Amino acid sequence: MSCAMQFTVEATDPNTAARTGRLRLPHGEVETPIFMPVGTQATVKALSQEDLRTIGAQIILGNAYHLYLRPGTDTLEAVGGLHRFMQWDRPILTDSGGFQVFSLDGLTKVSPEGVQFQSHLDGSRHFFTPAKAIDVQISIGADIMMCFDECTQYPATREHAEKSMRMTHDWAGQCKARWHERGADATQALFGIVQGSVYDDLRLESAAGLVDLDFPGYAIGGVSVGETKEEMIAAVECAAPALPPDKPRYLMGVGPPVDFVEAIARGVDMFDCVMPTRNARNGSLFTSEGKINIKNARFSQDFGPLDPHCGCPVCGVYSRAYLHHLFRAGEILALRLNTLHNLYHMLELAASARDAIRAGEFSAFRRGITSRYG
Amino acid sequence: MSCAMQFTVEATDPNTAARTGRLRLPHGEVETPIFMPVGTQATVKALSQEDLRTIGAQIILGNAYHLYLRPGTDTLEAVGGLHRFMQWDRPILTDSGGFQVFSLDGLTKVSPEGVQFQSHLDGSRHFFTPAKAIDVQISIGADIMMCFDECTQYPATREHAEKSMRMTHDWAGQCKARWHERGADATQALFGIVQGSVYDDLRLESAAGLVDLDFPGYAIGGVSVGETKEEMIAAVECAAPALPPDKPRYLMGVGPPVDFVEAIARGVDMFDCVMPTRNARNGSLFTSEGKINIKNARFSQDFGPLDPHCGCPVCGVYSRAYLHHLFRAGEILALRLNTLHNLYHMLELAASARDAIRAGEFSAFRRGITSRYG
Repeated sequence: MSCAMQFTVEATDPNTAARTGRLRLPHGEVETPIFMPVGTQATVKALSQEDLRTIGAQIILGNAYHLYLRPGTDTLEAVGGLHRFMQWDRPILTDSGGFQVFSLDGLTKVSPEGVQFQSHLDGSRHFFTPAKAIDVQISIGADIMMCFDECTQYPATREHAEKSMRMTHDWAGQCKARWHERGADATQALFGIVQGSVYDDLRLESAAGLVDLDFPGYAIGGVSVGETKEEMIAAVECAAPALPPDKPRYLMGVGPPVDFVEAIARGVDMFDCVMPTRNARNGSLFTSEGKINIKNARFSQDFGPLDPHCGCPVCGVYSRAYLHHLFRAGEILALRLNTLHNLYHMLELAASARDAIRAGEFSAFRRGITSRYG
Repeated sequence: MSCAMQFTVEATDPNTAARTGRLRLPHGEVETPIFMPVGTQATVKALSQEDLRTIGAQIILGNAYHLYLRPGTDTLEAVGGLHRFMQWDRPILTDSGGFQVFSLDGLTKVSPEGVQFQSHLDGSRHFFTPAKAIDVQISIGADIMMCFDECTQYPATREHAEKSMRMTHDWAGQCKARWHERGADATQALFGIVQGSVYDDLRLESAAGLVDLDFPGYAIGGVSVGETKEEMIAAVECAAPALPPDKPRYLMGVGPPVDFVEAIARGVDMFDCVMPTRNARNGSLFTSEGKINIKNARFSQDFGPLDPHCGCPVCGVYSRAYLHHLFRAGEILALRLNTLHNLYHMLELAASARDAIRAGEFSAFRRGITSRYG
């Protein structure tokens, strides 16, 4: 299919659908389950690429919509792709832009051919077809590309969800054709995206339809759009088992630790979410004893580390009192240190999940996470 | 006088008053001439302390006014001083707060006893006497403290400048007394600040008055307050030779490369300025060919380094096009990378000045800087 990616499941949990494995990609290997930091505009907000390496990020996300508008595909082509542009030599996955385009309320016009939208930067008009979304992602040169999909809004009637899902399938076929036509299958993997909103039969139909198209990997999309946690988990529980066990499964936009672990228990391998980085910029930090907000006055003279059990570059050096001061004073360094810590925490959570699955201790690990963050 | 500091002049330029030497301070040695990055609120804006070590910062500034208000002296005392609070183990110099207090237009009331001011943060009222300014700086624990002075406004009549300078001298005596009384002379050096505005006789009187008080080092203050470059240089040219050659001379708030080198030529050893860091955050960057603004469209597809002759951690990795993109996109990383580069540039400029003086090539170095930035 695609020689750009190989996926190997290395261990499975006997009691759940959790598994640990390895993705081999043009820019390196990725251990799964994995958390992928979001680098919307060719940078993970507040961090340098060296910072990302320091905290052990194995793969990051880029966003086709944002990168298409700025710096633009001409610039990315001129330099030889996003890896070179941002000097990140490990794997990258690009979101197709569907989610962003459909978030531009009132500025989009959807037709079976594609989506007309206006730039959030300057109001300029653009048209994305499935083939165009693939072309943009080829210019970016990510290790893994996503099909252009309609991210079905929530709530959606069954009728709307079904129609939307069918269009996503048509587009998936066009994306796949374009991917082969451009010869990108040799160097970039392409994932299909399961839609179907909260309707189990649609989720199953979507999974089956995409599996028929035979992608190197599959995402579960149309989640993190306002549905309840239970609805999100139900969608995963329905769709994941309908996807081939030898292909990676990516749950789009889901990040809170409990959801992360519950989705792993249902067979998900890959995750991304802006939550750890956005929370960090708001002072909301993960610790081994749950979340804290560093702007809270009780930290003003707390000279201990943010989390004594954390091995991140922040906890080893700076105190809660200093982080509190930086945040209160509106200092730029607060954004970076908080982001380093939260992302390290998510990456460690993924590493612990992998270890637990390998050691046959996933159920105990899952209970621990639920009691800490639940 | 003070066992907290030793200063040794190691080489002098035969043609000018330029000299290179070494300050031995409780937290380490500082080579002079030196540029001191400004860390107003217990952080050099956009950088971590590891960043500062990476670019070779030898000493940084803290600000007594800002630190007194936030995190507050109680917090700094509780943790054992600013070094521990921010985890910076190299020397620190603190500004006494005079400059800031006198910048709070309309909120200050000056009397011979001291200055009443209102916090720019919450409007709360505070009173700084010379003794209080020393007490605050003792709580901060910087290697070098500054006397509390009235930073004479520009323009100032001769009468006002004289009266203001006399008060600064009274306060300098009180600061020195407090410094001894508290026993801080064993661990912290104290510098007197020459005032006198643009009046040569007042500058000379000020220098003589402070030299009578016998401080470990002397600053030239009341510059960078709106005067012309010529007036600033004239003040240095007048005051510097009137200060003892075996004591360090610090020109407060002066930073542009040409002014820096011209002041070195007149015997100045220490400098601080927010300009390199503030410029960085506005996209204005130093290069070996002069200043550029990275937001300029001509850099959008310029994939070379910011400055091919620069050894900073940014120029070795990232391109002008990437820095341009980050700045245009309003990304936090732009602020950090730009700051790293500009500060490295200033630290390298100081290192080159030291090398040039030692090698007897200061005049050629000075001409080079003037032609590049003049």
